[in-house]
Amino acid sequence: MDKNLRSAASDKKTILFRTAKSQILGYAGISDQNTLAFHDDYFGHRLSIFEKLKGVKVKILCIDHIGIAANSIHESSRLYTDALGLKLTGTEDVAEQKVKTAFLPIGESELELLESTDPEGPIAKYIAKNGEGIQHIALRVDNLEAALEELKNKGIRLIDEKPRRGAGGAMIAFIHPKATGGVLLELCQRD
Amino acid sequence: MDKNLRSAASDKKTILFRTAKSQILGYAGISDQNTLAFHDDYFGHRLSIFEKLKGVKVKILCIDHIGIAANSIHESSRLYTDALGLKLTGTEDVAEQKVKTAFLPIGESELELLESTDPEGPIAKYIAKNGEGIQHIALRVDNLEAALEELKNKGIRLIDEKPRRGAGGAMIAFIHPKATGGVLLELCQRD
Repeated sequence: MDKNLRSAASDKKTILFRTAKSQILGYAGISDQNTLAFHDDYFGHRLSIFEKLKGVKVKILCIDHIGIAANSIHESSRLYTDALGLKLTGTEDVAEQKVKTAFLPIGESELELLESTDPEGPIAKYIAKNGEGIQHIALRVDNLEAALEELKNKGIRLIDEKPRRGAGGAMIAFIHPKATGGVLLELCQRD
Repeated sequence: MDKNLRSAASDKKTILFRTAKSQILGYAGISDQNTLAFHDDYFGHRLSIFEKLKGVKVKILCIDHIGIAANSIHESSRLYTDALGLKLTGTEDVAEQKVKTAFLPIGESELELLESTDPEGPIAKYIAKNGEGIQHIALRVDNLEAALEELKNKGIRLIDEKPRRGAGGAMIAFIHPKATGGVLLELCQRD
């Protein structure tokens, strides 16, 4: 810090640093990226972004579901129903995703078994590359649009920049696996 | 039971009850709801559904956690904490599994980030083969020992036939991915 600094005052959004003669040495404030930035107007340039400050507004409510890629939802559901006692509450065709989905609720979450309806669909391609298994997880948020906005502002790479319609009437959006350490992560909102 | 009953024969799906003169007194069978239903055709009406038969005794309480293989739990946790507002509540070394685990609670569940502490550990091997990402899911049961017993009796292939100690003080056991459609599925019990 500059040796001329004599006082610092905050209005909660910015902190002004002044000399003994009230010259403004610089200020620190919240940038668009929700980081605390220190600007040294005394020398006419920005010195550094040195700390994350403002909290996260995204509110994750629960694990909404786990998506499991299956060659046959009929075959794959049998372990869950016949051996583990879960109930298969319904199935749904999601034409846009070329997939048939089966729902198995567990507590506040559910398993979603995903069977491709088209060899060119994303689930068929996933299985061709990785085999059957866990394909994605979905976290439920209270406000999907606001969450996407915040992620974009923080530079998080998204697959879907706007909410779109998913299975079960939910609004959904995927974060890019490059931003999540290899996890295909969906955010979803249910009303 | 009717005093005229003299024999009972089963074809595994239904049991026929007959009199000494081979008149059918009734039959018991498995209904659509996996319950044992007793039909008394002798009197021309269904008497009762009186017992769960094929019954699943395993009780799944919730998704306990999702295990995510990461090169660095420090790096991977940042998306969840800095962008999605989850709290990292602790880390734990699980020496037996050669893994360091970080816990991020969500609702009744949590994410567990898994970083290998040994190039020969299961998480290091998983990442070498599949890259970072979702490695397993764990379902919480009320009685793990009883659940394993039931699965064995049903011919479900297990990795762990007996409960063993996992992260966070839970007792855990893995079902074999051959039995689950490629999902590495853990059952766990917390007291």
